[in-house]
Amino acid sequence: MLVQQLRKVLTNNNIYSQHSIKLIACYSTNVKRTKIFESATAAVADIPDGSKILFGGFGVCGIPEKLIDALKTKGVKDITAVSNNGGVEDWGIGLLIQQKQISKMIASYVGENKELVRQYLAGELAIELTPQGTIAEKIRAGGAGIPAFFTPTGYGTLIQKGGAPIKYGNNGKVDIVSRPKPVQTFNGKDYVLEESIFADYAIIKAHKADPYGNLVFNKSARNFNAPMSRAAKTTIVEVEDIVPVGALTPSEIHIPGIYVDRIIKGENYKKRVERLRLRESDENKSKSSPGQELRERIAKRVALEFRDGMYVNLGIGMPVLSSNYIPKGMNVMLQSENGILGLGPFPTKEQVDPDLINAGKESVTVVPGASYFGSDESFAMIRGGHVDITILGAMEVSATGDLANWMIPGKLVKGMGGAMDLVAAPGTKVIITMEHNAKDGSPKILDKCTLPLTGQGIVDLIISEKAVFAVEKGVGLTLLEIAEGLSVEDLRLCTGAQFEVSSKLKKMAQIGEN
Amino acid sequence: MLVQQLRKVLTNNNIYSQHSIKLIACYSTNVKRTKIFESATAAVADIPDGSKILFGGFGVCGIPEKLIDALKTKGVKDITAVSNNGGVEDWGIGLLIQQKQISKMIASYVGENKELVRQYLAGELAIELTPQGTIAEKIRAGGAGIPAFFTPTGYGTLIQKGGAPIKYGNNGKVDIVSRPKPVQTFNGKDYVLEESIFADYAIIKAHKADPYGNLVFNKSARNFNAPMSRAAKTTIVEVEDIVPVGALTPSEIHIPGIYVDRIIKGENYKKRVERLRLRESDENKSKSSPGQELRERIAKRVALEFRDGMYVNLGIGMPVLSSNYIPKGMNVMLQSENGILGLGPFPTKEQVDPDLINAGKESVTVVPGASYFGSDESFAMIRGGHVDITILGAMEVSATGDLANWMIPGKLVKGMGGAMDLVAAPGTKVIITMEHNAKDGSPKILDKCTLPLTGQGIVDLIISEKAVFAVEKGVGLTLLEIAEGLSVEDLRLCTGAQFEVSSKLKKMAQIGEN
Repeated sequence: MLVQQLRKVLTNNNIYSQHSIKLIACYSTNVKRTKIFESATAAVADIPDGSKILFGGFGVCGIPEKLIDALKTKGVKDITAVSNNGGVEDWGIGLLIQQKQISKMIASYVGENKELVRQYLAGELAIELTPQGTIAEKIRAGGAGIPAFFTPTGYGTLIQKGGAPIKYGNNGKVDIVSRPKPVQTFNGKDYVLEESIFADYAIIKAHKADPYGNLVFNKSARNFNAPMSRAAKTTIVEVEDIVPVGALTPSEIHIPGIYVDRIIKGENYKKRVERLRLRESDENKSKSSPGQELRERIAKRVALEFRDGMYVNLGIGMPVLSSNYIPKGMNVMLQSENGILGLGPFPTKEQVDPDLINAGKESVTVVPGASYFGSDESFAMIRGGHVDITILGAMEVSATGDLANWMIPGKLVKGMGGAMDLVAAPGTKVIITMEHNAKDGSPKILDKCTLPLTGQGIVDLIISEKAVFAVEKGVGLTLLEIAEGLSVEDLRLCTGAQFEVSSKLKKMAQIGEN
Repeated sequence: MLVQQLRKVLTNNNIYSQHSIKLIACYSTNVKRTKIFESATAAVADIPDGSKILFGGFGVCGIPEKLIDALKTKGVKDITAVSNNGGVEDWGIGLLIQQKQISKMIASYVGENKELVRQYLAGELAIELTPQGTIAEKIRAGGAGIPAFFTPTGYGTLIQKGGAPIKYGNNGKVDIVSRPKPVQTFNGKDYVLEESIFADYAIIKAHKADPYGNLVFNKSARNFNAPMSRAAKTTIVEVEDIVPVGALTPSEIHIPGIYVDRIIKGENYKKRVERLRLRESDENKSKSSPGQELRERIAKRVALEFRDGMYVNLGIGMPVLSSNYIPKGMNVMLQSENGILGLGPFPTKEQVDPDLINAGKESVTVVPGASYFGSDESFAMIRGGHVDITILGAMEVSATGDLANWMIPGKLVKGMGGAMDLVAAPGTKVIITMEHNAKDGSPKILDKCTLPLTGQGIVDLIISEKAVFAVEKGVGLTLLEIAEGLSVEDLRLCTGAQFEVSSKLKKMAQIGEN
């Protein structure tokens, strides 16, 4: 990238011409180029205000903590930050938000950072909420010379139709909303056109580098660091170890050095675990409450959907519970959107590794036969329909299979994370698990969703504590199973949509029963 | 993919309904699913005539030789084959071509297989010649749930404008030509819309697998095997070794098992080297001929373009020669489109590895600090402009920077290989090296190319044995250097285009001179 950098500097200073480039480049022939910088401060020294910067990491896992600190100290302002989420308030990118160094964020999830949400609702900062897989693919495309691509993700939602709030005014009203995106049909299915992301800088973290910039990541800390390394004019990497040229075998290198411009070695990594979860021994297992019994009833029904050899993505919360009920001897591989295939149980205290978390940012382990990959690969896997089943929670589901689970306008700003991608894959069965009714008793299964959609016509099966419904295109809801003690009439009263009753209607099944 | 497979079988047999699927899936609960098949014959047993099949490999490097043999024996007919090139006549995919099992090919290069070209020109088989990077990206997109994407590759050529011959009639005339493709401008640059490829089967080769289907490739044998594994309903892999679950560390796995459906272990691999090249000792270096002197003069001028830290892609033939003149102590990393960064010299007899070849299918070595990757990553790197310089040969170059080097209609059918991708990246300097005139003395530098283009307005510098020209948008050709003993007038006589003369015109420089 040497020639390009020179060209850029010369162009910016209005002294560009092919001849002058040649001259200057000749002078540099004898200067041995190195990518290793002596400090984080030196590595970010030339980053100007107003830069568009990609920040690696998922939550606080795999974040470039030293480089972020240096950016904070330098006080770079008016940053457009691309980061999967808003992190936490007092660490990582949260530090730059605290200091109001960021004027715009492109993120899929901001739910863990109250200050970020406050700034957003107060009109101090813009947020372009973007599905996680779409961010990953926009970045992958940007690095790969692809200016735009079609994706099923977000079709029929605010993301495609426009109108998602990007910036609030100081009066609490929305000043800027997202624009509608072009759509096109391929093979009978509708897709959205998304443009790629290419930034001024990528600020990322890897485990090891060699002086050529070849990178190796640790476990699930690969996440967005991998695709981001390829999608910026200048890629700056901090690592825990710099090894000699040749110490990394050519086959183990995750990111070839061609993408990397600057390397620094960080010391004394703090590496927080956002949500420490430990394996429960039989003694300290929490006592069951009525709420928990309900959730376990749903989880035990979900577990009946598992088959040997299946690949399953479990949403945060209730869906994850069902993994406790995978029958012994059945091999179900759990996919985690942050870059793991083969999630295992929560770790013991000794096993905890901050570089190994799930999509809920909880400490986890992996099973033998697991693999790690970047967020671009993870969502290629998801969007490509390679996952057999995806299980998600819902705020509302419609009789035509629409799902709403990411936003309550004016009230709840969290973001869609990977949910829009997970439901968009043709080929992947979408199972919704949820309490049948909201806390105020109102139905969550409706003729038509009232909240902004996560996906349109994408639900295949609904499992609540009261019933199991199949959702079929052109048919609507069919009641397949009903909880013990409930009549079909009871169910009609607490359900906000018409449904057919299967001729084979049966009692709601539970794993382990016959 | 179990559920999807079941659904497909049931749909094909008109017995699909959600309930019957459930029933059948329940029966399978106790059947432990395995991906390991006992033989290549068993693994391809259900492949019907008329299938669309992806074939891994680059030339004959990394081809699934056992599975191809099994397909040959089974006699599957009317195959639509996606394969980067046509291989050789008597090995690999060439065996299926010999037996007329393939009715259509999607390939970037067919120059090494005379029988394939014969069948094509005789109208016995259709060929959709497609740029190598576009094939790789179509496959990557197919596996990633992206139905279409925009690429700079091929804009302004037959690939975009339509009219490339796909099928000849038996009268020698072209029966079917390629259709024009939609174009769109992003950020002032023109792009072509390409649709993705998703096949019925992927037939690929890896080095090792575990029973879950996790794959590890060897050196440059990764090539198209990696992206193809993700882009088919059924992916069948042959490997040299099956290791136990857990034997592959999660970070070293190149392809997670989720993409793999069937695995067989092959025995007695033949692994041909298409073009064995050995390092020349000083004694056996070939004596220089006038033709060679001319080529070396060009190569020694090209070498002046190298700078420390650059990444360079050298086309097959003359461009490769210039790597002999990289100054000692200067680090120039050579990219090879088949998935290597850090090409080294030709091997000694002992170093030859059939799994390690360059884009010209010659045996090579790598330097310390090299890395291997798949063809999708390689062309993402190329198309994304991460390579500083690409050096290519030419049949014709125009004063506006058009390049023609892939086809002489009705005469020469070879294919564009990766050339259209290499020249399409904005940000990458395109240097053309060529003899100034054709063998019949006619000029190759023209006002306008007469042959089908490889790229439009993409050449930056032309180096012949007679002169060096800069090509600038809106300016045209500027003569920068001229060979000793030639006058500007001499040059005008043998050049088919007008050119300006630089006020700093100098004698053609050579590396090592002052």
